Amino acid sequence: MSGKLWGVGIGPGDPELVTVKAARVIADADVVAFHSARHGKSISRGVAALYMRDDQIEEHLVYPVTTETVDHPGGYQGAMDEFYEEAAERLATHLQAGRTVALLAAGDPLFYSSYMHMHKRLAHRFDAEIIPGVTSISAASATLGTPLVEGEEILTVLPGTLPPAELTRRLRETDAAAILKLGRTYPHVRQALTESGRLDEAQYVERASTERERVTAAADVADDEVPYFSIAVVPSP
Amino acid sequence: MSGKLWGVGIGPGDPELVTVKAARVIADADVVAFHSARHGKSISRGVAALYMRDDQIEEHLVYPVTTETVDHPGGYQGAMDEFYEEAAERLATHLQAGRTVALLAAGDPLFYSSYMHMHKRLAHRFDAEIIPGVTSISAASATLGTPLVEGEEILTVLPGTLPPAELTRRLRETDAAAILKLGRTYPHVRQALTESGRLDEAQYVERASTERERVTAAADVADDEVPYFSIAVVPSP
Repeated sequence: MSGKLWGVGIGPGDPELVTVKAARVIADADVVAFHSARHGKSISRGVAALYMRDDQIEEHLVYPVTTETVDHPGGYQGAMDEFYEEAAERLATHLQAGRTVALLAAGDPLFYSSYMHMHKRLAHRFDAEIIPGVTSISAASATLGTPLVEGEEILTVLPGTLPPAELTRRLRETDAAAILKLGRTYPHVRQALTESGRLDEAQYVERASTERERVTAAADVADDEVPYFSIAVVPSP
Repeated sequence: MSGKLWGVGIGPGDPELVTVKAARVIADADVVAFHSARHGKSISRGVAALYMRDDQIEEHLVYPVTTETVDHPGGYQGAMDEFYEEAAERLATHLQAGRTVALLAAGDPLFYSSYMHMHKRLAHRFDAEIIPGVTSISAASATLGTPLVEGEEILTVLPGTLPPAELTRRLRETDAAAILKLGRTYPHVRQALTESGRLDEAQYVERASTERERVTAAADVADDEVPYFSIAVVPSP
């Protein structure tokens, strides 16, 4: 009997914003797996720790590269593909041995998540189930305390890595927006908010729902102080 | 000492997809409040029941109208405004008496939710906190087991009540889409999916995460069988 792969959405960062189902599956799993960068710190493992047992196997899937500077014949993509293959085989070994594997995914596993790289490589070979999670967009909105979208409004979710002209056009045409994947892209995002006339409405939320949460007007954010785990929100008009 | 108002996102329908925080706040509240239509059945109360105590006060906020046919001098909007005022005053009475009130919101309280009508009327008078929840979009994606959005993709969330030409244009211009508020709007939604060339990619999920969940290709849905709690998803290409 093979084991089961669970893709476990663990929500935006507050350990209490894990679902009851995710908490149960994490506690029951034989193996808890999670990604991290080479520094080894895993935000997801920190969130799940409250629900883990002492005797669980931990599979720490460490990305080989964090920037596009990489010493691999296939370049960045080659290095990442090789990493995903190796990581999937490590999980497959547990599944073949009949172990249940809970693979942690920040936020929701199907919403801009690295979980799918494992799912695509394993779901056709093993039983796999996904547990949806609270997104950072919902957490940021809760902190702001204003509706994200109401009634007949349209919400557009935009990666901050899009070209500024594209961001500008999309911001002009939507009622509400959430811009993810900030960080080094922030000057472009502010430019697009300004040119679309939406800057005054926009709020910035960093590490929503965590102890290090920070909220400010998007106009007041310093370009060099924007971590990846931050969001710009243009709420319901 | 006044009580505290909690806006509690209870997720898409599976009682296990309630967050640990929501479960705790529901269990601890003096008063559990929820909306329903005049038939009196509350899906939210059914989800929260697992976490409620026997000795809690329940405030059942029953909408006076469910269609736009209404016998009120102010019409539909007048009847609804009066209902929201009265409902807010019922909750205010508990808060003034020092009671903690957990007001249940299906999905996420800031995402197309009626919770905001109470928040707007009470948050300036009382301590109020919002607990984000898992949306029906995340639950539908988990059921489909395919990424909703990845990498640099754009997600557009559209109410099915928009005019078909507007829906068509938005569907043409986005990578991924979720269309909510279906029901009687379904023929328009299918028309827009067809005219935008997205019908073959689109999936339909009814009552995601519940025992009555149903999944089918959006093209195969019968127009007269679409409840309000259903979603059309155009996943990541």
